[in-house]
Amino acid sequence: MDAEEFRRRGMEMVDYVANYLENIEQRPVYPDVEPGYLRSLIPTEAPLEPDNYDDIIKDVDRVIMPGAASPACTELETVMLDWLGKMLNLPEHFIAGTHGHGGGVIQSTASEATLVTLLAARCKAVRRVQASNPEKSEAEILSKLVAYTSEQAHCSVERASLIGGAMIKKVPTDNNYAVGGDMFKKMLEEDKAAGLIPFYFCATLGTTASCAFDRITELGPICNKENIWMHIDAAYAGSAFICPEFRPLLNGIEFADSFNFNPHKWLLINFDCSTMWVKKREDLIGAFKMEPLYLKHENQESGKKRFRSLKMWFVFRMYGIQGLQAYIRKHVGLAKEFESLVRADKRFEICAEVIMGLVCFRLKGSNRLNELLLKRITKSREIHLVPCQLSGRFVLRFAICARTTDSRHIQQAWRHITQLTFEILQEPNH
Amino acid sequence: MDAEEFRRRGMEMVDYVANYLENIEQRPVYPDVEPGYLRSLIPTEAPLEPDNYDDIIKDVDRVIMPGAASPACTELETVMLDWLGKMLNLPEHFIAGTHGHGGGVIQSTASEATLVTLLAARCKAVRRVQASNPEKSEAEILSKLVAYTSEQAHCSVERASLIGGAMIKKVPTDNNYAVGGDMFKKMLEEDKAAGLIPFYFCATLGTTASCAFDRITELGPICNKENIWMHIDAAYAGSAFICPEFRPLLNGIEFADSFNFNPHKWLLINFDCSTMWVKKREDLIGAFKMEPLYLKHENQESGKKRFRSLKMWFVFRMYGIQGLQAYIRKHVGLAKEFESLVRADKRFEICAEVIMGLVCFRLKGSNRLNELLLKRITKSREIHLVPCQLSGRFVLRFAICARTTDSRHIQQAWRHITQLTFEILQEPNH
Repeated sequence: MDAEEFRRRGMEMVDYVANYLENIEQRPVYPDVEPGYLRSLIPTEAPLEPDNYDDIIKDVDRVIMPGAASPACTELETVMLDWLGKMLNLPEHFIAGTHGHGGGVIQSTASEATLVTLLAARCKAVRRVQASNPEKSEAEILSKLVAYTSEQAHCSVERASLIGGAMIKKVPTDNNYAVGGDMFKKMLEEDKAAGLIPFYFCATLGTTASCAFDRITELGPICNKENIWMHIDAAYAGSAFICPEFRPLLNGIEFADSFNFNPHKWLLINFDCSTMWVKKREDLIGAFKMEPLYLKHENQESGKKRFRSLKMWFVFRMYGIQGLQAYIRKHVGLAKEFESLVRADKRFEICAEVIMGLVCFRLKGSNRLNELLLKRITKSREIHLVPCQLSGRFVLRFAICARTTDSRHIQQAWRHITQLTFEILQEPNH
Repeated sequence: MDAEEFRRRGMEMVDYVANYLENIEQRPVYPDVEPGYLRSLIPTEAPLEPDNYDDIIKDVDRVIMPGAASPACTELETVMLDWLGKMLNLPEHFIAGTHGHGGGVIQSTASEATLVTLLAARCKAVRRVQASNPEKSEAEILSKLVAYTSEQAHCSVERASLIGGAMIKKVPTDNNYAVGGDMFKKMLEEDKAAGLIPFYFCATLGTTASCAFDRITELGPICNKENIWMHIDAAYAGSAFICPEFRPLLNGIEFADSFNFNPHKWLLINFDCSTMWVKKREDLIGAFKMEPLYLKHENQESGKKRFRSLKMWFVFRMYGIQGLQAYIRKHVGLAKEFESLVRADKRFEICAEVIMGLVCFRLKGSNRLNELLLKRITKSREIHLVPCQLSGRFVLRFAICARTTDSRHIQQAWRHITQLTFEILQEPNH
């Protein structure tokens, strides 16, 4: 949608809202639909090619307005998570519409998904241990629970364990900054021998620092065998799995108890929209359920939920699966283009394999030199890079993020970086 | 703003966004302001009378755009919480701009505020107990911690304690469904004698069921003396405290460690916007702080925050304090009007004192009869009531919620209820 169409469509939408408010008294205060009404009104999968915008708007009146905020909000969310889950070719047990035990739900951030699954895993572990050891108090069990994650994992995993009152251990990574089965197994055996109770592993697909992928095909079977809840955090990289060529990176998902990624990061959905799937809905519901009378009559507080699935519905239909795939491929292509530019310049080095839209690179030389380069980049306000530390080295991260980024911007950014590099290297005592 | 003005202003806003997107490449990627730049650009208090809409829009360019999403997002939030805190006449230590140790922050829901403060209180209690008993393990302390709340409190308090892994005890209420000091003190003494460690009390101002007010002037000194974190949940009623005549209900706030209410419930701010203040910022920050390199360079993830304070800024300025006060008073007046109608009909009774915009009432007679009446009301889809249970009785709740509700709707609703009542009472074996 270009700016001109955006203006036209935006003004139609303002008019729609104004009309709604003007005529609100003619509407029933309570929807006249049965729970579950929505699923049969829309397709079971996202369209391959873009739908017509006018058809989408017509569907708001046909599908959403009869169900108002509730139950339409909850039901569209479940169906959109099914659409997206199928785009990723998730195992059937994650798809609610297959009458399995799992399904998807929207969270605000990947951190929230990590916290929620860790708490559900904690509840499940306590119940399991208590079932076979009724003499043990909950406090005693809690004090033995241990969660695991990669030393490269996002800090929110550590924060989740802090909130959940559980110990957390960080598994060392290999040369690619990924966790494999061997290292994890070794820690696990030691901890079990020491009387600890491993209960949760948060694997990362696409780490924050370097976009590394934990080897979940190795980790999954270990977790399943040991009754450890495996959660997969693919916050950034998850969107790419809608492309068949990237889907193999998700192999091993069949072992996971829960899976999460952020369409608001890389699938053109505005912040916030973090999508989470669980294998068994009851694991989540059982851990947090409360049922006072006023909630029963308010349909589980759904009137207080934000209607975030609407934007998913619009984006999936306006782009179509092929349009979204093209978007991912364009970004990865641009990252590869930037990687080639870096590799062609002998003063620089690439610091991690470039798989998605992130390029980790640095000037061959001291950390101080690279920190200086970043400082100059930030000061000039033309591009914005966020650094990381890899194996003790200060590394620059070039991330393709914006919808409108093009080859021209990549070339421009590289010219800018090399120009600043040139200036720095000219300075005495750089 | 009527529908016509909404159309015009909405279209201007669409145009503003389109222009922004069209010219985005001319903008610097990084703002050219110093942290803290915003406070001096806007008044220290909300206006008494409405500001001109055009001036508000001009201020978006003057105040917000130079600071883009970050740091403008964080800074406007802090200042808006100061504005609102001053509207409520909160003690100075809750106002960030006074250079005290406290301040406000936006949460998504009151449930989230309860959880966050309970976790902070837990962390503080563990550290305090460990300081004087270094031999005690964290697990041992956790197993002794006990939180308290009213038996009339929202179920989210119980859920928060479940998540926090702490015991929770419910304090019985008096005839007005409120908790006073005596009852709490008694429980406290028993629990301390049994070796438990009281650490958190969640008081409610305006309970969900009947809008009852816990007596915080009695509870506060007890909490302060016993090192118990007192959190005040005023989710619904909090908005009313901007009116001097309702402010006495907040007396005792000076004893609280944290305070929360939902402007999205009754202060014309769209969902979600739940405002929370803490006496000591460090209590919150210390409990959840993580500082990896990538967060340091992203200014504490503020780029991933939603800019919810913008809608506060617009609403406060478009209505002015007097406009907001008038809105609260109108709703309370309408509730009183409905109360009079109920009281004038001898078949009905009022079940709790009407203080704010909620009227709890029922037909004199069996619960079954009242359940039947509610069923008929819901089925007819003209008005929507959510019931509650008070002292074992099934009670109907008439809540004034909508911006556009007027005396005419109250009269209409009452005619509707009495008509359905008439029909039911005519039926054999009602």
